Amino acid sequence: MPEARLTFLLGGARSGKSAHAEQLVSALPAPWTYIATAQSYDDEMSERIAIHRARRDANWVTLDAPLDLTETLDALPDGAPLLLDCLTLWLSNQMLAGHDVEQESARLADVLSRPRGPWFVVSNEVGLGIVPDNALARRFRDAAGRLNQRVAAHAHTVLFMVSGLPMKVK
Amino acid sequence: MPEARLTFLLGGARSGKSAHAEQLVSALPAPWTYIATAQSYDDEMSERIAIHRARRDANWVTLDAPLDLTETLDALPDGAPLLLDCLTLWLSNQMLAGHDVEQESARLADVLSRPRGPWFVVSNEVGLGIVPDNALARRFRDAAGRLNQRVAAHAHTVLFMVSGLPMKVK
Amino acid sequence: MPEARLTFLLGGARSGKSAHAEQLVSALPAPWTYIATAQSYDDEMSERIAIHRARRDANWVTLDAPLDLTETLDALPDGAPLLLDCLTLWLSNQMLAGHDVEQESARLADVLSRPRGPWFVVSNEVGLGIVPDNALARRFRDAAGRLNQRVAAHAHTVLFMVSGLPMKVK
Repeated sequence: MPEARLTFLLGGARSGKSAHAEQLVSALPAPWTYIATAQSYDDEMSERIAIHRARRDANWVTLDAPLDLTETLDALPDGAPLLLDCLTLWLSNQMLAGHDVEQESARLADVLSRPRGPWFVVSNEVGLGIVPDNALARRFRDAAGRLNQRVAAHAHTVLFMVSGLPMKVK
Repeated sequence: MPEARLTFLLGGARSGKSAHAEQLVSALPAPWTYIATAQSYDDEMSERIAIHRARRDANWVTLDAPLDLTETLDALPDGAPLLLDCLTLWLSNQMLAGHDVEQESARLADVLSRPRGPWFVVSNEVGLGIVPDNALARRFRDAAGRLNQRVAAHAHTVLFMVSGLPMKVK
Repeated sequence: MPEARLTFLLGGARSGKSAHAEQLVSALPAPWTYIATAQSYDDEMSERIAIHRARRDANWVTLDAPLDLTETLDALPDGAPLLLDCLTLWLSNQMLAGHDVEQESARLADVLSRPRGPWFVVSNEVGLGIVPDNALARRFRDAAGRLNQRVAAHAHTVLFMVSGLPMKVK
């Protein structure tokens, strides 16, 4: 059974996070579990989801968890290679649903601190631009940074993706 | 007396810059000097200042220097461990006050090039997003990048913070 | 004749990309070719172009290629040290001109995958801020990230610039 460890892949938009994570997971014995957090609100998002889905073949079992991510992780079998993509979309869904994001983030980080297989988790870094004008965007940026810090603290390996290439942070 | 050297911690919003810098400083013999550059314009900012202040105990001596930072640094005793948090808020205060930011930045960088104790300086990286629509934000972004370059050039150690973890740049 | 290899310098606004690239190129035997992709639409841009131009001396041969970059690269003599600054301005020009940016990006990446001298290519990382409100900015951000990934995949060396300092990614 593959080792239980958490790998955290962090990066900007179009930094190659998902593709690199898929490569790492698919080097392990199939089947692989894919937890998708994306929720389609519009055509742009539907298109992105379709592109990601098309890249994955029949060895992937896809679970959708736009909100119930902690429960979905809890229900996973031991030893299953997992790709969870991505934390920031989940956080955005939680915020739109009006949930307490700090509490939900703490619960999620707690489950991720006890990986039960080779778990690969993708998230966006969104804090390296100018302070956003809009208060909701600032709240999101802060919550995402705090969530990323919590997860990174528990991860065995942290990769910062730059133009498709991983930089090892931890 | 602890060695005089400049450590520069750079990172995005919620990247754990301040907490990491506090950890590094508080590993040195107390008391520690904290120079705060934040100025409270609104409730959101007041709350942030209060959270930061609450994290620090009685071993910290806090000095406020929203504008007169160069003078405050000049007046510090030799050998005192210092945490200066942060350059970008100071720069924003200078810009709002209508001062010549290039001249003020050059003066500040000059003082920082001659640290008189173990000095830890925190700043925000704000240049890795899309070009801002608004001309003031672009001016700020440019000025912040130039100031960060000046300080990084003089620093003995430069850390780029990602999700609470330091990457050594220099 | 200097070795044919591609060095890719990526970074945020005011991260010292151009200055560092100029330093690396000017350590090689002159003359040096400079391909500028900037197009002056307003005073702010004209001023930036003038500052960059003033920094370079008579050993630099400057070619302007706001759109015809692939053709300009194809016409370069073998062995010539080259600084191309920068890909994101070229991409923005292509987008404004209504060209097919994916097709143009693929053509460009193809030429860059076969450098015929010591080629240094500068580009902006724009994907590490909050998701832009505006759809055009999101399209640009995605196209820039994809282009950067293509070029980074072919590069022999990839440097991520932070406050004027290079971090080696590859």
